[in-house]
Amino acid sequence: MSTPVRPPLKFVTFEGGEGGGKSTQLRLLADALRRGGEPVVTTREPGGAPGAEEIRRLLVEGEPGRWPPDAEALLHFAARAEHLAKVIRPALDAGQWVLCDRFADSTLAYQGYGQGQDLSWLQQLRSQIVGKTEPGLTLILDLPVEVGLGRAREQQRYERMGRAFHERLHAGFLAIAQAEPERCFVIDATRPIDAVSADVRLAVAKRFRVKL
Amino acid sequence: MSTPVRPPLKFVTFEGGEGGGKSTQLRLLADALRRGGEPVVTTREPGGAPGAEEIRRLLVEGEPGRWPPDAEALLHFAARAEHLAKVIRPALDAGQWVLCDRFADSTLAYQGYGQGQDLSWLQQLRSQIVGKTEPGLTLILDLPVEVGLGRAREQQRYERMGRAFHERLHAGFLAIAQAEPERCFVIDATRPIDAVSADVRLAVAKRFRVKL
Repeated sequence: MSTPVRPPLKFVTFEGGEGGGKSTQLRLLADALRRGGEPVVTTREPGGAPGAEEIRRLLVEGEPGRWPPDAEALLHFAARAEHLAKVIRPALDAGQWVLCDRFADSTLAYQGYGQGQDLSWLQQLRSQIVGKTEPGLTLILDLPVEVGLGRAREQQRYERMGRAFHERLHAGFLAIAQAEPERCFVIDATRPIDAVSADVRLAVAKRFRVKL
Repeated sequence: MSTPVRPPLKFVTFEGGEGGGKSTQLRLLADALRRGGEPVVTTREPGGAPGAEEIRRLLVEGEPGRWPPDAEALLHFAARAEHLAKVIRPALDAGQWVLCDRFADSTLAYQGYGQGQDLSWLQQLRSQIVGKTEPGLTLILDLPVEVGLGRAREQQRYERMGRAFHERLHAGFLAIAQAEPERCFVIDATRPIDAVSADVRLAVAKRFRVKL
């Protein structure tokens, strides 16, 4: 989504199914950037801002079928709109890196590929709400569904949505990566943390032309 | 939005600014229909279903500026999507009348005309979420802003948004009525309750060809 004349935003999102080590890798990348003297904001979705965290509770708690899928997609984008306005855009404007655990690709994967909401409608919402604040780099931590679900520590609402749902999700993330190869980088997350972390740093160094 | 071949849905919405007597008139219409043996569901927005009421609390409480306007519009449509799926569509499918205190026109008026969100974007959301479940009749209880705000009993978030906001809202509801004259009926709500109620019954009788 970035134009050739504008450098990619220093906005890095971590995506993928459950158990891929997104939050660990995000923390390791933040550490590496900070060691180099870079200012870094780490955040997560759904949530990341006061109202967005209230919306998060509506999404991650309760029974798998508590929301109709269209309501669920709108709640995710509502939380994202506040997160962008209050946290992400101000930090980027101030020259900080923003590292975010999940972002709009998760809504496409979970609500679109996973729950069957119309993908073009979700892309319209993404365009309306995210606008020009598309991530400069998206790291998709990829691993087989059975491995990921086995690793996931929590068993909240999305973890309980069933194997077939998580298979569609997995295929969805790979389809997203294929559609936007400049922004998305798929990393094999079945390997040890250090090996994955080295790939993350390499992808960041290459995309943003920084030393890490 | 209704097509000529399909009769209007027995779905009546009450709209307008603060203090127009929407809930009183809704109750009186429900009483009149029930006296005629008609099954009636009365409900309200934002809210009207369990999750939608949780979203309502995020919208009506707190400071006027707590949400970016795009997030606010999405929260209203998220609540509406659940309300439609769990309450409105099942009741209409079961042959019941649905009388609703506020619906999608309020989002157009408050978030569009009042808060300046793009009207065509809000209409797209309406089309996506409401679909074919457009009200058969919308009664806009109209009164001057200073009269309405003086009457409003509560001083929650929307009531505290300022006079200029409520003037744009008022103009917005009249613009909506003008754009959809078949569905919308504007009633002068400065008059006594009985006079307004007589107009409500007349509008319902004419639109649905029922005796009241």
